[in-house]
Amino acid sequence: MSRNDNISMSVIRRLPRYYRFLSELNEQNIDKISSTKLAEIMNVTASQVRQDLNCFGGFGQQGYGYSVSQLKEEIQNILGLNNNYKAILIGAGNLGKAVAKHMNFEKLGFELIACFDCNEEKVGKKLNNLTIMHDSLLDEFCQNNKINTAFLCIPRVCVENVLDKLYGYGIKNYWNFSHYDIARKYSDTLVENVHLSDSLMTLCYKMNNRDKIL
Amino acid sequence: MSRNDNISMSVIRRLPRYYRFLSELNEQNIDKISSTKLAEIMNVTASQVRQDLNCFGGFGQQGYGYSVSQLKEEIQNILGLNNNYKAILIGAGNLGKAVAKHMNFEKLGFELIACFDCNEEKVGKKLNNLTIMHDSLLDEFCQNNKINTAFLCIPRVCVENVLDKLYGYGIKNYWNFSHYDIARKYSDTLVENVHLSDSLMTLCYKMNNRDKIL
Repeated sequence: MSRNDNISMSVIRRLPRYYRFLSELNEQNIDKISSTKLAEIMNVTASQVRQDLNCFGGFGQQGYGYSVSQLKEEIQNILGLNNNYKAILIGAGNLGKAVAKHMNFEKLGFELIACFDCNEEKVGKKLNNLTIMHDSLLDEFCQNNKINTAFLCIPRVCVENVLDKLYGYGIKNYWNFSHYDIARKYSDTLVENVHLSDSLMTLCYKMNNRDKIL
Repeated sequence: MSRNDNISMSVIRRLPRYYRFLSELNEQNIDKISSTKLAEIMNVTASQVRQDLNCFGGFGQQGYGYSVSQLKEEIQNILGLNNNYKAILIGAGNLGKAVAKHMNFEKLGFELIACFDCNEEKVGKKLNNLTIMHDSLLDEFCQNNKINTAFLCIPRVCVENVLDKLYGYGIKNYWNFSHYDIARKYSDTLVENVHLSDSLMTLCYKMNNRDKIL
């Protein structure tokens, strides 16, 4: 299987959706699916599906379609979901707690091994199976544990200070809920931003321009 | 000012970022900014900035740059942030609560006027200044109030049932945190999805392919 190493972010951003849909089909014991049917679920064209999957070497058989379980497994490998990357959560406020409780990290390639907060009232309390630790313990914890990534659920004004420390400990991958521009400060970091307010403003735009969009 | 009505979603998705940066500059009492400087903050090219803003009629003056407060206000109008759209929250679990407490809705064009949950234990409790209501009151509430949009913070399996009701009440705009495909069921809805797990899987992909990406 040949694999194209120059894959656009828009293809990559569709992969989690392929993976979700294939996981569902797999749970429904559906063995195979045509590119036409997969395209319909994905809301793209069949040619787009074939193009997308060709970036990673194909997987389909003409006249048969795709094997659901095989394609699911291939995409799982491409996404790297079996890596069990060690993550720490910074910020156990409303958002941090919701993220920790809401997400099934293990299925998404991560293991949450610690959470930190600067608020003394939160320290010592439980979040999932973890005890919230004070930020002052970050240094020791990061020296004693190999951490692959940090989930930042803290206000923007707090990010720079914590980020400088985390980067100093060698953490170069971030799931960032703040508006702080991490990649701009440290260009060798990998960052995935969740900008809730941008998403809501986009909805506002769509509503305000309904006639042009629909 | 002429305005191009055929604006791509990628331009639209950059507007909230322009708005955020311009708001910050405005708070710092910075009067004007060149496209070069704005491009640097936005992490795009100056030509991209000019192209983006030209979609909406320009705003810049050659040799002067952009007036920060004027451009901020123009983008605010384009996004429709002054509309004060009435919103209800469905689901006051961890995620719903975090969203309600975390977001400054008024600044983003919305007013949250009610929240609903099917869990009797949550009903009657306070969330911000609102009292959580039982789902069974949705019908009455929606008949007596003009609601523009619903924020869905419920598990995917619960969405279809609630969505059918909300759509029946005439609500056609959704901020959706579940993986349920609303627009596929009702094609005349406007939907903005927040797919946290897709975002985390994308980070996993980036980490798993670090050498190719950086």
